Amino acid sequence: MPVDVDGLVAQVGQGRPRAVARVISLVENGAPELRAVMAGLSARESRDRGAPRVARVIGLTGAPGVGKSTCASMLVRAFRRRGPTVGVLAVDPSSPFTGGALLGDRVRMQEHAGDAKVFIRSMAGRGHLGGLARATPQALRVLEAAGCEVVLVETVGVGQDEVDIASLADTVLVLLAPGMGDDIQAAKAGVLEVADVFAVNKADRDGASATLRELRTMVALSDRPWRPPIVPTVAIEDKGGDDLMAALDRHHAHCARSGQLDARRRARVLAEIEAIALVALRSRFDELRGDRRLSELAQRVLDGHTDPYGAADDLIGSLP
Amino acid sequence: MPVDVDGLVAQVGQGRPRAVARVISLVENGAPELRAVMAGLSARESRDRGAPRVARVIGLTGAPGVGKSTCASMLVRAFRRRGPTVGVLAVDPSSPFTGGALLGDRVRMQEHAGDAKVFIRSMAGRGHLGGLARATPQALRVLEAAGCEVVLVETVGVGQDEVDIASLADTVLVLLAPGMGDDIQAAKAGVLEVADVFAVNKADRDGASATLRELRTMVALSDRPWRPPIVPTVAIEDKGGDDLMAALDRHHAHCARSGQLDARRRARVLAEIEAIALVALRSRFDELRGDRRLSELAQRVLDGHTDPYGAADDLIGSLP
Repeated sequence: MPVDVDGLVAQVGQGRPRAVARVISLVENGAPELRAVMAGLSARESRDRGAPRVARVIGLTGAPGVGKSTCASMLVRAFRRRGPTVGVLAVDPSSPFTGGALLGDRVRMQEHAGDAKVFIRSMAGRGHLGGLARATPQALRVLEAAGCEVVLVETVGVGQDEVDIASLADTVLVLLAPGMGDDIQAAKAGVLEVADVFAVNKADRDGASATLRELRTMVALSDRPWRPPIVPTVAIEDKGGDDLMAALDRHHAHCARSGQLDARRRARVLAEIEAIALVALRSRFDELRGDRRLSELAQRVLDGHTDPYGAADDLIGSLP
Repeated sequence: MPVDVDGLVAQVGQGRPRAVARVISLVENGAPELRAVMAGLSARESRDRGAPRVARVIGLTGAPGVGKSTCASMLVRAFRRRGPTVGVLAVDPSSPFTGGALLGDRVRMQEHAGDAKVFIRSMAGRGHLGGLARATPQALRVLEAAGCEVVLVETVGVGQDEVDIASLADTVLVLLAPGMGDDIQAAKAGVLEVADVFAVNKADRDGASATLRELRTMVALSDRPWRPPIVPTVAIEDKGGDDLMAALDRHHAHCARSGQLDARRRARVLAEIEAIALVALRSRFDELRGDRRLSELAQRVLDGHTDPYGAADDLIGSLP
């Protein structure tokens, strides 16, 4: 199907869900038309509003099973009560191959299906080179152009994602749950450094107070200037949502005051530009694929005539 | 501490564990001396043996809790009974920040601690740009130069890693366990396409036969020319090891016969060269960090004077 760039750009600007979904698919697939569409969206925003709109971005991460979708749904509900249009990007890196999202738990978001001011989109995090890094900022840009004032970016927190989110979000919300075992233990060390707010979900379960206590100790030991609030929630019963919103707002106000908000948004744009540039360079590599020179390079390394660094120099030198 | 490149190269060639560990640390940190060390290792291998030795590489992946380390330990035992020197690279992407590995379960490998012909190394998968992709092939190269004839590369199977492993290993072994819930369900769709051999570990548990049955159905529906064997194991009791080794050998023989082994090894080298080249290009971006031009670029995007693609073109154009 040919892509009607101008039509898509206009329809995204009107917040039409199908156009938004279509453009995010182009983003996911790294479609050739993407460049024109993104340029069109930027131009349209600049024309109509002076500059592209920027959403409040909340990153939501945590291990599988802590209740991220349920918590996201609770936050969507809370933000919608305040009025703004809300987007949710659920990035699932566990599905590198399937074309669409196969998140069964997206059903937990069904309650918002009838709300024209809620955009929900799952993305599979394919391609480590810029998978999440390339696609998410651009999908975010699409949601912003569609009028989303708040966007929740939800990912499975398994390590690098947290860092990617941190470079992307105004506020990073890390979800934990009691009794998740050693994996959480290991994860904590990493997430502590990127979390702006913690929620201990399923706080009605055994072990919740231990998890809260432990987390408080870890936070107290940290020397970051912002001390992340720790909020107990039971998202499935809509409990703790007000406290969580208050904590998120507190961090947002802190960032706005300290100039961090601008800094984070600038970093987000820089990361986006770099990711696009790297993908462009990478695609120049791909143009060499199948090229006899490339297999010769590999063979030279296998034969011991050169080492991988020397071969990499040759590769860079022969970029088209 | 200054790096004695020649000394390290010689000691790695002699299979000295401390030198091996030191060089893998250089790999992890992307140390500036790395290039000289890797060139030295390649030159030494070529001088002494005509070409660098190539290990049999088995990728081992699966969700947290399926028993990867226990299974790896069982395989180390089995390979060691046959004679060859064995390496284990345990890549843990869940720890992006900590300098070393904090895998508590490395204790399950303790039984091999006294065996001079077993090299075990944990690596944290930092930096999505080439973290695992850059470091693992090079660490593998170090183990090969140290005389490892078999290397197990163990990673937490959470998506992209499986793909990275697939591009790296001669044989990809995917571990499952009964009763892991929906996460496994989601993972299966992805791993099915990269798995060369499946092990259903903890096969003495409830639900094992259901998992086996389900997996058999999925494998039967696949149209890949190689149909992955499915082996039940109870690694903690050393059960199923012989069957698993037989399945791994069967796949290895199949790959050798079909020419796939050479193809995979060539692909491994190509991926390594590309990763090094991308890191080199990326570091040129980093040289621009703090450069006024870069913040101006970001500001131009924020102001709507250009879009991220245009900015990326400018960035590439201004690479040092």
